[in-house]
Amino acid sequence: MALIVQKYGGTSVANPECIGIVADRIIRTRQQGHDIVVVVSAMSGETNRLLSLAKEINPDPDPREVDVLLATGEQVTIALLSMALHARGFKACSFTGSQVHILTDSAHNKARIKKIDGQRVRQALEDKAIVVVAGFQGVDEQGNITTLGRGGSDTSAVALAAALKADECQIYTDVDGVYTTDPRVVPDARRLDTLTYEEMLEMASLGAKVLQIRSVEFAQKYQVKLRVASTFSEEGGTLITDENESKKMENVVISGIAFNRDEAKLTILGVPDHPGIAHAILGPIADANIEVDMIIQNIGRDGTTDFTFTVHRNDYKSALKILQDVAEQLEAREVLGDDNIVKVSLVGVGMRSHAGIADEMFRLLAEKDINIQMISTSEIKVSVILHEHQLDTAVQVLHEGFGLGRPD
Amino acid sequence: MALIVQKYGGTSVANPECIGIVADRIIRTRQQGHDIVVVVSAMSGETNRLLSLAKEINPDPDPREVDVLLATGEQVTIALLSMALHARGFKACSFTGSQVHILTDSAHNKARIKKIDGQRVRQALEDKAIVVVAGFQGVDEQGNITTLGRGGSDTSAVALAAALKADECQIYTDVDGVYTTDPRVVPDARRLDTLTYEEMLEMASLGAKVLQIRSVEFAQKYQVKLRVASTFSEEGGTLITDENESKKMENVVISGIAFNRDEAKLTILGVPDHPGIAHAILGPIADANIEVDMIIQNIGRDGTTDFTFTVHRNDYKSALKILQDVAEQLEAREVLGDDNIVKVSLVGVGMRSHAGIADEMFRLLAEKDINIQMISTSEIKVSVILHEHQLDTAVQVLHEGFGLGRPD
Repeated sequence: MALIVQKYGGTSVANPECIGIVADRIIRTRQQGHDIVVVVSAMSGETNRLLSLAKEINPDPDPREVDVLLATGEQVTIALLSMALHARGFKACSFTGSQVHILTDSAHNKARIKKIDGQRVRQALEDKAIVVVAGFQGVDEQGNITTLGRGGSDTSAVALAAALKADECQIYTDVDGVYTTDPRVVPDARRLDTLTYEEMLEMASLGAKVLQIRSVEFAQKYQVKLRVASTFSEEGGTLITDENESKKMENVVISGIAFNRDEAKLTILGVPDHPGIAHAILGPIADANIEVDMIIQNIGRDGTTDFTFTVHRNDYKSALKILQDVAEQLEAREVLGDDNIVKVSLVGVGMRSHAGIADEMFRLLAEKDINIQMISTSEIKVSVILHEHQLDTAVQVLHEGFGLGRPD
Repeated sequence: MALIVQKYGGTSVANPECIGIVADRIIRTRQQGHDIVVVVSAMSGETNRLLSLAKEINPDPDPREVDVLLATGEQVTIALLSMALHARGFKACSFTGSQVHILTDSAHNKARIKKIDGQRVRQALEDKAIVVVAGFQGVDEQGNITTLGRGGSDTSAVALAAALKADECQIYTDVDGVYTTDPRVVPDARRLDTLTYEEMLEMASLGAKVLQIRSVEFAQKYQVKLRVASTFSEEGGTLITDENESKKMENVVISGIAFNRDEAKLTILGVPDHPGIAHAILGPIADANIEVDMIIQNIGRDGTTDFTFTVHRNDYKSALKILQDVAEQLEAREVLGDDNIVKVSLVGVGMRSHAGIADEMFRLLAEKDINIQMISTSEIKVSVILHEHQLDTAVQVLHEGFGLGRPD
């Protein structure tokens, strides 16, 4: 008998019928003899409904009161799901974040979990109840209701699994696992049985939006086995765990190909090549709350250097304006920008011990006449910046070239 | 500077526009220099919306989970009202029932308040905030969310006023006070400036549904001054207080005429006149959870007696059936019933010291050829049962005969 934490998102509990399907799935796991803690989000649409009520009343609502308001969303779901489990003859008991003492800091709307006292949950499990907990919410030391920010329910589930030392934390969503790449681009894309935390972090940060990055970090830190699966199918999903366990089962170099269509690049040419220049360029960007993704600076020539970085396309125009001011101050030669680029990345822990992966990637792209504008690498990934028109071809050729498709 | 508790019901906070009107009214009181604690209900319609979601999932939902579900209704309102106060430049802070420790017993859906720890509210008041508290809800000693049952927000407000020793508890609703009788029956009906707790209790129990009976009892017990006023008008409303204060201001014998159209009467004729007979008749009725209102038994004759009582019209048929079984067992002569009756009552603490009020009532009714079927009296009221066709005439003649109309 294991202790399983299951998390169901907003689309999985969108209406009474969906809630019934979720209840049935929980019961199937229960009937295998496991103890179960369920974490749920608000019914999809509810958070937006509440926020628009708030905006009608106050265009700039107080973050503390926004949390009081939004926390009702999950509270409705825990009650309804418990009722659905009762209707099927199973003992169940709901708890808000405050009732199970999900203690957070006081950063309303984006609180971080500090501690979970699992006592109340353990007691309910001993009473043979299925425990249903409101995700996304907690309580600070003064007893104020807090929320973890959008997607925070994944983090709630992982944190509860860590606190309770659960055997597995299962995240149910509308996809049935993590794929080698987006099946809309490569129809042959294959669902991965296992993946390491680091690979999942790279995949997630590169636009494979299956799990919240925070929740994966949390799972890695506390060594919680994470499984991503679909609420509406019986497939086993993808298990995310540490390297040793993952690679025992699957012996591959590359796990997947991630990509991100939302990138834009900015280059400042001919800046003086001296210490502090990177900060002089990126400081004003950071001050404007613009997040920077890739940063590339090559060796200088003739006392000057060129500096390139990428930002989200939504931030392209404001970043460009800031960079032009910076260029003037630094007496740089020129500022260039391009918001028609994409990033494509090979991800896999196997890369660490295999030379030549990057080179093979460049060869495959060259064969298709795809020009690589920028390159950046980490221990477990190689990312390239390409023109957006070449995204699909690039992903397809890499997916096939690295043998990621379904076995024939 | 006084401490005022204000309570606004569901129709007063039905939508963002109404919430804005409520915020404006709170601020007017605030600007008179008072400390304010506001108690609010769920937006009208919300409780029914939530209950119908629950019924879709489970026709017989667990009372504990119903409370978790329904408590979200008021939680939404406290957040929105606080935001509306902020938007107008005023400091405000919301609290759920659990956050201000409205401690109740564990009788879910109909919990009773045991204790309120006013510490958190006092602290917020000291911080110069308008305090907004969720009505209708509390928390039991195990930390479970409880609700007080429909209309419980009035009770929350009075209980908070008692705990905080507030100077006045103002209940805002869609009528602007308590009237001498229903203005739809007597257009000349007059709003009362003051009323005693006892009079209000008689008026409320007789169908003048302005305040929940429980909240009036609570106010009387803790000597909380209650004021009933309209959210949407600037009239001063009706102040409900104890006898001495009330009668200092107003020297009248009769305060109002209450009536109830929902009555039905049942009579069992010729039952043996011996001890225990009332219990033999009413026991089975009580066992069927039927509430009995008036009970009349006159002196017996020839060793038998007649026994009459009234019930809500909805319970008439089942009560009649039970009474027929009882009659058979007791070998009673006959069972009679009538569900076309109404009850009309004169209410007033002044009656205690004025003989002849009942007689004057009977004289006025006789003049209009109205037949009195039953009579029952208490210290501060005289009730008569009449045929329903005579209700309006009876109320009008009594209202005029006792001089309750507006002064010329």
